[in-house]
Amino acid sequence: MRNDELIEPRIPKGFRDFLPEKESLRLGLVRKLQAVFERFGFLPIDTPVLEFAEVLLGKGGGETDKEVYRFTDHGGRDVAMRFDLTVPFARFMAAHLSEVGLPFRRWHAAKVWRGENTQRGRYREFMQVDFDIVGTDSASADLEILLLMKESLAALGAERVSIRYAHRGVFNAFLARLGLEKASVDVLRAIDKQRKIGTEKTRELLALIAGPSHARDILDFIRVEQTPALTLTKLTGIVGDGVEGIQRLAHVSSALEQMDIAGSFALDPSITRGLDYYTGMVFESFLGDLPDIGSVCSGGRYNELASLYTKQHLPGVGASIGVDRLMAAMEELGLTGAGPAQGSVLVLFLEDRLLGRYHEIAQALRGAGIAAEVYPEKKKLAVQFAYAEKKGIPLAVVCGEEEAAAGVATLKDLRSRESFEGLKPADLTGKARELLR
Amino acid sequence: MRNDELIEPRIPKGFRDFLPEKESLRLGLVRKLQAVFERFGFLPIDTPVLEFAEVLLGKGGGETDKEVYRFTDHGGRDVAMRFDLTVPFARFMAAHLSEVGLPFRRWHAAKVWRGENTQRGRYREFMQVDFDIVGTDSASADLEILLLMKESLAALGAERVSIRYAHRGVFNAFLARLGLEKASVDVLRAIDKQRKIGTEKTRELLALIAGPSHARDILDFIRVEQTPALTLTKLTGIVGDGVEGIQRLAHVSSALEQMDIAGSFALDPSITRGLDYYTGMVFESFLGDLPDIGSVCSGGRYNELASLYTKQHLPGVGASIGVDRLMAAMEELGLTGAGPAQGSVLVLFLEDRLLGRYHEIAQALRGAGIAAEVYPEKKKLAVQFAYAEKKGIPLAVVCGEEEAAAGVATLKDLRSRESFEGLKPADLTGKARELLR
Repeated sequence: MRNDELIEPRIPKGFRDFLPEKESLRLGLVRKLQAVFERFGFLPIDTPVLEFAEVLLGKGGGETDKEVYRFTDHGGRDVAMRFDLTVPFARFMAAHLSEVGLPFRRWHAAKVWRGENTQRGRYREFMQVDFDIVGTDSASADLEILLLMKESLAALGAERVSIRYAHRGVFNAFLARLGLEKASVDVLRAIDKQRKIGTEKTRELLALIAGPSHARDILDFIRVEQTPALTLTKLTGIVGDGVEGIQRLAHVSSALEQMDIAGSFALDPSITRGLDYYTGMVFESFLGDLPDIGSVCSGGRYNELASLYTKQHLPGVGASIGVDRLMAAMEELGLTGAGPAQGSVLVLFLEDRLLGRYHEIAQALRGAGIAAEVYPEKKKLAVQFAYAEKKGIPLAVVCGEEEAAAGVATLKDLRSRESFEGLKPADLTGKARELLR
Repeated sequence: MRNDELIEPRIPKGFRDFLPEKESLRLGLVRKLQAVFERFGFLPIDTPVLEFAEVLLGKGGGETDKEVYRFTDHGGRDVAMRFDLTVPFARFMAAHLSEVGLPFRRWHAAKVWRGENTQRGRYREFMQVDFDIVGTDSASADLEILLLMKESLAALGAERVSIRYAHRGVFNAFLARLGLEKASVDVLRAIDKQRKIGTEKTRELLALIAGPSHARDILDFIRVEQTPALTLTKLTGIVGDGVEGIQRLAHVSSALEQMDIAGSFALDPSITRGLDYYTGMVFESFLGDLPDIGSVCSGGRYNELASLYTKQHLPGVGASIGVDRLMAAMEELGLTGAGPAQGSVLVLFLEDRLLGRYHEIAQALRGAGIAAEVYPEKKKLAVQFAYAEKKGIPLAVVCGEEEAAAGVATLKDLRSRESFEGLKPADLTGKARELLR
């Protein structure tokens, strides 16, 4: 490469830089979720970004494989970047079971990578926030994940949500009754499309797969009735109350009623989570003000996942928040808050000789809990004020040779253009605090 | 693979799982640093983990290349995982200069990957926390990074630190005087070893490279004198005060004196940062109580880095905290704090029928700011109490059929074994708060 040939500062398609405003939003969002998780007694973990390909893909195969970033490292190891936080968690549990004990509640906020098509606003690098309870197959754990979905979304400002749940076992029993086990993948895909293409087109699609009579049966099955109790009665009528999932749905929905929060939840048999590895209850959640962006937090019960790595039975239930989709939604709904935390006071730079003094003033302000920064060099005041304006800094400190010699400084309110002269250090801090209030 | 063949849940060498205690420590550490950065007006950014190999390695070459995780993705793109946070930041600045404006202060806490030898406690996946000021070549920015190094370490509990600084330009001028420009890499390596092998062995090494007379000159040059002023006088005597770095060192060290914090800092000409890309001041920092673990926060001024991507002159200065080394040090010094945030109240599970009630009780506690969790299923009380003990939960709520019917519950203090019976919801919350105080 010749020295004068620049490299274009581009990044691969589907990857993104996060500028301060957006990264502040993401950090704030994760921090709010962390506070919720801590209230629920969930503990944080972390796992490597790179795992052995065998560990990540041993089971997955097919559809997933093509999307995985997989390569051979220097040591000849077949490795891959994680594509979700669930498979690494299953591996983690098999490896650390005796250390963490059961039941174990974990949360994990981290990036995952999928080399999928970048159309339709999908990214190849995105952040997920997962929370799971493992070591119990109880209704209580299922309910707790539902509650946590609601609390998490509420903490982010989304109070009006519709969290929808169903049971994969009930759905499978229904398909078995229709003799459609073999077409289950196609049926699941058709149902997943319903929200987008509408009931009539779904009926046509299902008729092609399973015939018009079964298409009608399936649409009857997945319809949400006027109350959870009516939906449950219908499902019970179709598959019989001997199906384990029926009891689970009854138990969880009656607890939601009892807790007087049933309004945020709906038993919705059309929720299946497509091809995911769920075996019991499944969850999706929609924002009341933006239902069209799809589910922002989804999950379910997976009773067989860790069986790839251990003979110990490790039932689990959890959900995952799609942070990127949620951030897009929050921006659309104006829930993004005040933007990045920014310096509140700019100490102007007038004289090289006063370098130490400027930083002393800034340190004194920081010591009082006020964000402060020193403009880093002597430039025209207009340039320094323009910097404050661009960064939204409301106050400036001015200190020239004479003021420094007298041990004082001037505080300027850049909003009102008021000046407060001759302030001693303690008065400066007090005045700044008063003006920032 | 046969179904009954388990996959070993192992992870590649040099990679680690973080269990809750350690991950809580790491999250807490990053959060404390974030608070410091915000007080200094630094803004968070994020960049992709995968970049085009050309972008990351265009310049680096040689030594770095072998350590980089680099591969061809599905689309035939030559990509690599970032090995530090500085090169991506240079690329970020070239791409987003007009959006962020100058001067720009950024921090970034994220993982980086290097496939290096895992001996000597090195990891292949580790977290760095970087902070930089770009767009100015001023002494003020150099000083600010030094202050921020001190404040960052103090926020993590390390009050006794020795932050050492020097100037690469002064060192280069010195080597030029000796006619040793061509041997500079070997000389830098020998000096870097001094802390480990001692002065005499370093003298022998330098004598082999540059002859005994120059070895003596170099050891004279890098020796720390009794005061920064004396060290500076010596350096000035050797290279002359026409060298730009001499003025910079004088300016920064006098400001540190003026701010009355010079005790935490030392002008130390033996600090060179080896082969790094620094062009001006260089920094390292050592813990007063654990100097042997080496520098826990290092950095310097790099005035040429972004020139790979843009013709715009983008001077910068920054430092990087090695979070893993620091965590090891904090553990050794007992500075790790109280461990993971844990549930403070366990609601025992006695009756399946009371599922909703148990979660109502937990929700009421959480609403009052008290972490609470429900034991997820009906098990022997001994098992539930053992869980509370393992997790360090001090309080338990007991509520059976009769109590539920009467709208009350019992609170047990698992430390004192005291019981408080017949508590209405509001009293339960109040009592729990009182006992947790």
